[in-house]
Amino acid sequence: MRTTLRQVLIGDALPSERIFHERLSKAQALAVLSSDALSSVAYATEETLLVLVLVGSAALTLSWPIALAISVLLIIVAISYYQTVHAYPTGGGAYTVAKENLGTWPGLVAGAALLTDYVLTVAVSISAGVAAIVSAFAILDPLRVELALIAIAFVTLVNLRGVRESGRVFAVPTYFFIATMFLLILVGLARWLFGSPPLVSPGPPSTNAVQSLTLLLILRAFASGCTAMTGVEAISNGVSVFKRPEADNAGKTLLWMAGILVTMFLGITYLVNQFGVVPRGGETVVSQLARAVFGTSPVYYLVQAATALILLLAANTSYSDFPRLAMWVARDRYLPRQLANLGDRLVYANGILLLGGLAALLVIIFGARTHALIPLYAVGVFISFTLNQAGMVRHWLRLQSPGWRRSAFINGVGAIATGVVLIIVTATKFVHGAWIVLLLLLAILLIFRTIHRHYQQVAEQLSLSRRWPTPVRRHTVIVPVAGLHRGVVKAVQYAQILGGDLHVVTAEIDAHDTEKLSVRWQEVLPDVPLEVLPSPYRSVIAPLLEFIDGFVQEEGDYVTLVVPEFVPARWWHHLLHNETAWLLRLALLYGRRGWQGRFRIITDVPFYLSR
Amino acid sequence: MRTTLRQVLIGDALPSERIFHERLSKAQALAVLSSDALSSVAYATEETLLVLVLVGSAALTLSWPIALAISVLLIIVAISYYQTVHAYPTGGGAYTVAKENLGTWPGLVAGAALLTDYVLTVAVSISAGVAAIVSAFAILDPLRVELALIAIAFVTLVNLRGVRESGRVFAVPTYFFIATMFLLILVGLARWLFGSPPLVSPGPPSTNAVQSLTLLLILRAFASGCTAMTGVEAISNGVSVFKRPEADNAGKTLLWMAGILVTMFLGITYLVNQFGVVPRGGETVVSQLARAVFGTSPVYYLVQAATALILLLAANTSYSDFPRLAMWVARDRYLPRQLANLGDRLVYANGILLLGGLAALLVIIFGARTHALIPLYAVGVFISFTLNQAGMVRHWLRLQSPGWRRSAFINGVGAIATGVVLIIVTATKFVHGAWIVLLLLLAILLIFRTIHRHYQQVAEQLSLSRRWPTPVRRHTVIVPVAGLHRGVVKAVQYAQILGGDLHVVTAEIDAHDTEKLSVRWQEVLPDVPLEVLPSPYRSVIAPLLEFIDGFVQEEGDYVTLVVPEFVPARWWHHLLHNETAWLLRLALLYGRRGWQGRFRIITDVPFYLSR
Repeated sequence: MRTTLRQVLIGDALPSERIFHERLSKAQALAVLSSDALSSVAYATEETLLVLVLVGSAALTLSWPIALAISVLLIIVAISYYQTVHAYPTGGGAYTVAKENLGTWPGLVAGAALLTDYVLTVAVSISAGVAAIVSAFAILDPLRVELALIAIAFVTLVNLRGVRESGRVFAVPTYFFIATMFLLILVGLARWLFGSPPLVSPGPPSTNAVQSLTLLLILRAFASGCTAMTGVEAISNGVSVFKRPEADNAGKTLLWMAGILVTMFLGITYLVNQFGVVPRGGETVVSQLARAVFGTSPVYYLVQAATALILLLAANTSYSDFPRLAMWVARDRYLPRQLANLGDRLVYANGILLLGGLAALLVIIFGARTHALIPLYAVGVFISFTLNQAGMVRHWLRLQSPGWRRSAFINGVGAIATGVVLIIVTATKFVHGAWIVLLLLLAILLIFRTIHRHYQQVAEQLSLSRRWPTPVRRHTVIVPVAGLHRGVVKAVQYAQILGGDLHVVTAEIDAHDTEKLSVRWQEVLPDVPLEVLPSPYRSVIAPLLEFIDGFVQEEGDYVTLVVPEFVPARWWHHLLHNETAWLLRLALLYGRRGWQGRFRIITDVPFYLSR
Repeated sequence: MRTTLRQVLIGDALPSERIFHERLSKAQALAVLSSDALSSVAYATEETLLVLVLVGSAALTLSWPIALAISVLLIIVAISYYQTVHAYPTGGGAYTVAKENLGTWPGLVAGAALLTDYVLTVAVSISAGVAAIVSAFAILDPLRVELALIAIAFVTLVNLRGVRESGRVFAVPTYFFIATMFLLILVGLARWLFGSPPLVSPGPPSTNAVQSLTLLLILRAFASGCTAMTGVEAISNGVSVFKRPEADNAGKTLLWMAGILVTMFLGITYLVNQFGVVPRGGETVVSQLARAVFGTSPVYYLVQAATALILLLAANTSYSDFPRLAMWVARDRYLPRQLANLGDRLVYANGILLLGGLAALLVIIFGARTHALIPLYAVGVFISFTLNQAGMVRHWLRLQSPGWRRSAFINGVGAIATGVVLIIVTATKFVHGAWIVLLLLLAILLIFRTIHRHYQQVAEQLSLSRRWPTPVRRHTVIVPVAGLHRGVVKAVQYAQILGGDLHVVTAEIDAHDTEKLSVRWQEVLPDVPLEVLPSPYRSVIAPLLEFIDGFVQEEGDYVTLVVPEFVPARWWHHLLHNETAWLLRLALLYGRRGWQGRFRIITDVPFYLSR
């Protein structure tokens, strides 16, 4: 069943007992769960500038106060989530919190929003990583989509191998990125303090303002910068992958992450302002800054490599979160139950594959362009932030545990802040793409409902509480035969021990052939009568169905059809045989409706051919 | 099972008893079985001229003696076949005659040659019919392939409806063609006798000879003209479709056909010579002749229409012969047995579809160009002619019935004549395409051998003569369950009546879930113990297979796996369930080899969901 290729790519199956060993240390978890949040430094500043530049180069300095506002918001959200992590040490994040405190549908809205955002995170991060590579090597520009798809395939494969190994794989690039960013900021600050900053070539001076500066535009710039906040909730969803004590470790890691993120985001934005970097097509803002600080030296290439790596691998955060969230939703029967199956390598393999497939689709549709994907982004994140914090407020109000007032206040501030930002993000980005996300969320919620209704209906029909199933009243065993050979004799021998009325029948396709068969049957199996079914239209199946109908008329009537079938040794041999057994199975299983409660059972007696 | 579209296109199923009514009168049979032979008049003369024109216009007059030689040959072959028809009134043609008198492999060679030629006949006739249409309406030239494919689809469909209706459909065009050809010849002769023939515009005078006149070239022209003889054997293959007395009626029809064919072929060739028609691209020779005789008048269009019709429908001859011959070969187990199944409408539907598909493939490969297909043609025909006549000589020598010397002499002349022509055709056309046919024949013979060996091996393994199958010694019934619901209870109830040791088992994927299931099981079905199989790798199937292995160790050990399966109401519901029953079936049926003689039987107990 398991092929060698699969073993090479994914590894051998792991026993269930090892699931507790697949936990992560704080340092590993920071790498696995924060690469999304940290990596947004690579594009958040640029997205702010891209809005401000519409007013003219002069407006770019507004990016600094906007970055400060975003940092404050980030700290509020981090503290709010710190409380969530301690209140829900088993993990589950916005979906669980909203479901338990606000009700099923708010929970599902949060779940749908998060699932959407995880897919977008993969698409955006991978696209931005490709942009960092293309900034350094312009020649690769036509291969954007191909590079992005290769990266998605790689991350998917690594995750199919299992979470611990991905912890190992991803620790190096995350810390490498943090190191190079701090180096960039420190060297940049030094050059700015101790010498005149080398001016970045300003490109075509875009003093010709396209739009005038309005509050709406500032809010749009703010909303675009809020992409820096994506991924902050990852740790609260993934509490269960931490080593014990899970909640403590997760809380500390969360605060560390927020600190690192704020420092890097503010540092980069400050320097971009001081060095007068202007966003332009083809090269990212961070790439321009690094060139200004280091020149086109080996160190510059190191920064680009680190950025590309962290971005390509930031997608990995979603690969931890998406399958886990999908599993929770599937356990609650709002998604197909296959998403809750733990695979060979102790990961939710179906969720990983689904995420990879959807992200690849997005990359193809949007041509792996970060800027085209960004408007879809962040709406989902802020929906889940708001619902999570609001849920936490309800949680404290209900629980009234010691210190509940202070906790409720903190989460209340978080809920209001993220709620306001949600409105800003939705309003300013609505025509630019947020409407697509809202439609998508609606579609996902409809799918949730349809799936849930189906599972409920199945459960109802399968329920034993209605009434006890009628016991077997009459059992008839029918063996349809077309000839007389070892396989047929085996099937008849088998049918005889099943303890029902035995009927061996043959459909008369050709009177001459049937006559010959009957004579031989008499010689070989004299004690088993062979009944001949007329078949004026030469069909094997139709007369048999009619014959069965005579026996299955009431509940408790069981007919077992014992079909002699030989299994050829090679696949192409199937082409040389009539495959009547398969046709029979299809005709009986799917052919007619209205058979509830009456039982026609098909039993193939396989006869294995060796050649 | 049977859709409305199918009923509209092909008609309702016919009962077997009607097969004796599906016989043809002599006049109908002439139309159905001779359209191939007669229609070759439309291209045989042209193919001769196309070779001769390589020497120059002057050489074209050689077509007349060549046509005379071909006519003599045709009469010899017709008389030979007249004897075959009487000696083999059940039909079967070259395949049967060669097999019975010369041995299996000569028979198979004849069969392969004929099958190849039938496919070629469809492709050539349809292509030539399209050429007749394009001659009249040059605008249709780019649609050659599409027109040809539509024609093939039409003829295939008509034949799927059944032979009698095709008799009706085809009688009209055949007689219409014979009438217009005789009209063309008579009016042409009259114009030549009583006035100076209106000269056909000679096109670019091709006096610049490409090649000099050699014996080889004359033989090549002769070989090309021999395409006129294709289809002559059709009547001998189809004796069984005649009304009684079959042999008499078939013999008379054969002679009539030969007479009509020789008259038309000689008439056309003679007039083409007298009117100085030169073959050129875009317009057929017959079309040029008809224009010369009738001008571009309505009568000219009638001739073209009749030619197109007879050619399009000449393909029909192959649709009678190919499926019937394929059925004979399949009954002898050299082709898949599906080709011997009599379909709904009392025709060998699989053979008809196979022929249509292969001919369509040829048309696409060769771009529906008659001249490109012709070199492949005729080799197969003459192989079958020669083998048939040689077989008949053996037949008379063995039988020594009254008059056997005379009969043997006639067939001997036929065998020698067609054998010599076979050598000429193969030699002169070898590099032009005959080598393809020879390779193809070799490939078909290899396929015959492979298929036959497979059927022999199957028969051997299924044979009862080796030793009697071991009776059932120990019967174990295993019910794998993953939960407890109506479907499971039904399956357990059913398993209890099968009279074996009952084991209800569940694979422990999750210890907590299994514990819950065990407790509930105890309450609901206290008298049936539930056994728990450890599954460290979370597989449902692997521990079950291992469990079964404990019970199936010797011949006579039977394990019946009773699998509760619910059948969803809609196809997309399958996506929401794990479909373990199907995976189990695949794993057990195809998963492992080496199970000969030991029986693991899978029984699905279906539970039909209504919603």
